[in-house]
Amino acid sequence: MQIDRLIRAVRHMRNPTALGLDTRPDYIPETFARQVSAKSPGGAVFAFNAALLEALADIIPCVKIQIAYYEALGTDGMECFSQTIFEARRLGYVVIVDAKRGDIGATASAYSAAYLRGGSPFRADFLTVNPYFGTDGMEPFIADCEASGTGLFVLVKTSNPSGPEFQDIVAKDGRPLYELVGSRVSEWGSGLIGEEGYSSVGAVAGATYPEQGRALRALMPHTYFLLPGYGAQGAAAEELALCFDKRGEGAIVAASRSIICAHKRTGEKDFENAARDEAIRMRDELRSVLGRGR
Amino acid sequence: MQIDRLIRAVRHMRNPTALGLDTRPDYIPETFARQVSAKSPGGAVFAFNAALLEALADIIPCVKIQIAYYEALGTDGMECFSQTIFEARRLGYVVIVDAKRGDIGATASAYSAAYLRGGSPFRADFLTVNPYFGTDGMEPFIADCEASGTGLFVLVKTSNPSGPEFQDIVAKDGRPLYELVGSRVSEWGSGLIGEEGYSSVGAVAGATYPEQGRALRALMPHTYFLLPGYGAQGAAAEELALCFDKRGEGAIVAASRSIICAHKRTGEKDFENAARDEAIRMRDELRSVLGRGR
Repeated sequence: MQIDRLIRAVRHMRNPTALGLDTRPDYIPETFARQVSAKSPGGAVFAFNAALLEALADIIPCVKIQIAYYEALGTDGMECFSQTIFEARRLGYVVIVDAKRGDIGATASAYSAAYLRGGSPFRADFLTVNPYFGTDGMEPFIADCEASGTGLFVLVKTSNPSGPEFQDIVAKDGRPLYELVGSRVSEWGSGLIGEEGYSSVGAVAGATYPEQGRALRALMPHTYFLLPGYGAQGAAAEELALCFDKRGEGAIVAASRSIICAHKRTGEKDFENAARDEAIRMRDELRSVLGRGR
Repeated sequence: MQIDRLIRAVRHMRNPTALGLDTRPDYIPETFARQVSAKSPGGAVFAFNAALLEALADIIPCVKIQIAYYEALGTDGMECFSQTIFEARRLGYVVIVDAKRGDIGATASAYSAAYLRGGSPFRADFLTVNPYFGTDGMEPFIADCEASGTGLFVLVKTSNPSGPEFQDIVAKDGRPLYELVGSRVSEWGSGLIGEEGYSSVGAVAGATYPEQGRALRALMPHTYFLLPGYGAQGAAAEELALCFDKRGEGAIVAASRSIICAHKRTGEKDFENAARDEAIRMRDELRSVLGRGR
């Protein structure tokens, strides 16, 4: 099961970071873009992604590829997306496709065929999904996770400022929507718990809402968390720590711009080196707040 | 504005049908697939889609392309998706891309760049979106609609059996979530009302929940509805009628398998003809329940 592979990879590298390849063409240093002389924007993005993946493979265990940035480049971008997944797998990364898909059952099944099956064209180890359609919209994804050992991260509590607008609506029984979604995510995943004690059905829990993160951690002891919002969106490492379990495990922290655009902040010409420095700094910060138990 | 164009196209053809091109390769008759001798599954799907678009262009004003079925075929499918959009536009259809995208602002902006801008690679007239992230996840889409005249259909009440699981959760003020989302959709669209009285920010309202559809129609007088669930999902024309306004306008009904797979049901060899017959039958049924006012 990919959830066990993810947990062990994080443990082995002592680094719960997911490298976010939310790559826009304007992130690429001009000198590098000229050097690779790609025939298209997608080609340049792939060269940049491949260089980062190569540079960070001994530090970061997992990559999260945000598909929106590839769709924005059309079919050329989707080719780049496909190549980026392939390259990340070749280098041994656990691959999360961040697509937040969700639809009625028949359509969810088509999305699942795109990402989560053995023969999927854009084969990922994990896919992020949106729960708005409820259980029957999740079933095809869950069935494929069971069949192929892949996994999901279901949106529960998102990291953006307007997240609470609907997610914090309080139902008559006093529970906010995100808690109801969280309980349902636990149920969906209850039959898919791996050797490490976590389910293939994980949750997205925004690190920008630390108190709720802590509550969800207690509510969902077998649910692995994907935590967006670190760095550019403002969540601090101390706040993230609340979403981990007592062993300092059970969650992975996504960081994109802070790593892949580190060269823009530091002014360093070597973007791979700037990314490595930031990835190591982030890793060490996470290690420090997660304690010596790790 | 595309919302005015849509309303006028529906009025001109006296047919509020959106042709759902949720095309799977196994929908294609074998004889046709052999005949077109496409080099790939995507090529065969495109040939099938193009034949249907050509056959139905004088009957149906609008096409809804469900992107999941194209993603399931990988980059070949995305090429087919792109060609299908192009062909639909060439034939004069109003094009809805049914992708149900949604994410935090920066990512929503990338999705919007893919579908809703003048130079978008997969340029649509309308895009379906998921509201789970709240207002700041919608803003980039709405800004692009304002700039380019394109439009949205925001998920409010979906057509599937599990839809009520979260969407019908009742908040403390007595209103279910879908109504809260519905009010917000009205607000998001309040600055984008076209000459025909409807906003560029529309709503997806499942035709399988007719009572709620009627309530939403009253709650959202300037919101155009996209109604899935007709035919294969079981909603009857009489129930759909509750989601239309007093003039018999203000909504469009999506139908996919019932039209594009009509040849499978009838056994007819000519799939274009089978699709035409069903499209005409559906049109006439909708005309009849929407009354003589149309």
